[in-house]
Amino acid sequence: MESPEDKNNAARIRSARIQNKQSAEQLYAGIRKGSTKELSISITLLESEKAEDQEVAARLIDMCLPHSGHAVRIGISGVPGVGKSSFIESFGTLLTTEGKKISVLAIDPSSHISGGSILGDKTRMNALSQNQNAFIRPTPSSGKLGGVAQKTREAIVLCEAAGYDIILIETVGVGQSEIAVKSMVDFFLLLMLSGAGDELQGIKRGIIEIADALIITKADGANIQPAKLAAATYKNALHLFPPTPNGWIPRVATCSIIDNEGIREIWDMIQSFHNAMQLNGHLDVERKRQSTYWMHEKIKSDLFDHFYQLPKIKSRLSELEKLVESNKLSPTAAAKELLNNFQQS
Amino acid sequence: MESPEDKNNAARIRSARIQNKQSAEQLYAGIRKGSTKELSISITLLESEKAEDQEVAARLIDMCLPHSGHAVRIGISGVPGVGKSSFIESFGTLLTTEGKKISVLAIDPSSHISGGSILGDKTRMNALSQNQNAFIRPTPSSGKLGGVAQKTREAIVLCEAAGYDIILIETVGVGQSEIAVKSMVDFFLLLMLSGAGDELQGIKRGIIEIADALIITKADGANIQPAKLAAATYKNALHLFPPTPNGWIPRVATCSIIDNEGIREIWDMIQSFHNAMQLNGHLDVERKRQSTYWMHEKIKSDLFDHFYQLPKIKSRLSELEKLVESNKLSPTAAAKELLNNFQQS
Repeated sequence: MESPEDKNNAARIRSARIQNKQSAEQLYAGIRKGSTKELSISITLLESEKAEDQEVAARLIDMCLPHSGHAVRIGISGVPGVGKSSFIESFGTLLTTEGKKISVLAIDPSSHISGGSILGDKTRMNALSQNQNAFIRPTPSSGKLGGVAQKTREAIVLCEAAGYDIILIETVGVGQSEIAVKSMVDFFLLLMLSGAGDELQGIKRGIIEIADALIITKADGANIQPAKLAAATYKNALHLFPPTPNGWIPRVATCSIIDNEGIREIWDMIQSFHNAMQLNGHLDVERKRQSTYWMHEKIKSDLFDHFYQLPKIKSRLSELEKLVESNKLSPTAAAKELLNNFQQS
Repeated sequence: MESPEDKNNAARIRSARIQNKQSAEQLYAGIRKGSTKELSISITLLESEKAEDQEVAARLIDMCLPHSGHAVRIGISGVPGVGKSSFIESFGTLLTTEGKKISVLAIDPSSHISGGSILGDKTRMNALSQNQNAFIRPTPSSGKLGGVAQKTREAIVLCEAAGYDIILIETVGVGQSEIAVKSMVDFFLLLMLSGAGDELQGIKRGIIEIADALIITKADGANIQPAKLAAATYKNALHLFPPTPNGWIPRVATCSIIDNEGIREIWDMIQSFHNAMQLNGHLDVERKRQSTYWMHEKIKSDLFDHFYQLPKIKSRLSELEKLVESNKLSPTAAAKELLNNFQQS
């Protein structure tokens, strides 16, 4: 079902593609002036699969890089229904009233280029999407998570060069996308519902342990007590985890969008985290680590693509996999055969 | 400091190397008869870096593969001091009294080829090391974890072909090695001390979540109550975790080696797990997944080694890393440059 919003969006993407002919220099000038038009076109370029678009995008990124890095980068995750959009709407609006410019990006492995959460979010973030100081632009997820994540990472650079102070990166609690988001943000927020058990089924193992803070949402009305109880339970459970390398002890808090409770406290918490990490040098260390991490991730994924797409590898791989699965050939022997094939090219 | 045991061990390794000249067929025949002599020599061959040894080992593995897979594979981890060796001694002895043949292998990233835990274990596992139905052979850790883990995985195949019913793979709570062990066993036991807090510092984040069971050790004397309390606390905490894909709910139990309490219950638990997974088909699914996982891991690591060791890549890499860290070049652009270099070979 194509809604009017869908059509607008598709039209926006097409018209952006036509305007791609702008040079990297023109786009850069627009971005540096804070123009959302050039910013949007540039992110579309990033997402394009065309070689000529990628070339312009790569030049643009390198121009913007020296002007990036000043923003606070926050990852936000949680299963569908936890209230991510309401939270971002409320949290983002608070930030803009404090004079901050915010960007909302997203990694949604379930979405498609022409639909998915990009529209849902905009409708659900009514106030924020009309706010002059907010830029909402989920990255459409076409192709593999790794590639999408790389593009989101580059979109952060463009947004920072355009003067945004806080970058929110939204994702859903499905596992791999959290790891990707964790590797590009300073602070990772996990939104959760009270009433542990059924509601948690959607959160993959390992996600709780990477969160810098767990926020129990919808702590209002009859749900205030259950939310407080859940927070206390998680606080106890987190004590059992080993400390994070940067010395931060993950926090647990509750919030209510309806009652407008706890939102400011979350921002205060993130600011105190950010200040502490700037002082102890961990922010810089971590961001450098992230940059080289993404470089090596890109090398890996391109090297694999190159390898696994070679016809002689492709044709032999599924046969070898079957032999390995049925214990007729060892994984090592199978790997060796493929690599010998490769090196004889 | 070289103990008499050290010398014996070094001598054993050397003499095994001299006897390497045995053909894969001879070693295979010995292994199938259950000879620990041929089994030891074969594992030494596996560990050898010499091309000729590796060739024999590869042939041997492929011969043994059809006879592998029947054993229960159990990973055992925990920080130093938790009592891993005592536990394995006691647990392993129980299994042998039930007529089982057991192998103890180890992955210890901190050990060296000529020393490390291999000797410590043998001294600490006095009864077991003299037991006819137990074969103790930690894999010395020379080189990268990935390579060591591959060899341990192949040692499992050899032990199974030699008729061992239960394979125990010991490792220490340092993170990456647990992930590697988890990927080659059916059941992963994490041994822990009561008195949560300081003692946990050595366990890396994420390890608790991959355990199929947490065992609180040293539940004896004045420590019985603290151990029971710790078990109850962990039981509550584990309820907050999402379920494992195979439907197993991780268990928490206490044990005492001194009082000989709780050991049989752990074996009963692992058997009921194993039976359930055989019935629901998850054992087969998981082992196939593990085999192809290790095939692709081997491809990846060999492909990277090949790539990163090329002189033209090596010479440019550290320069590019510096540019990326200082925001002068994007990770994508740096990766692209290296890959272009590579493909022009």
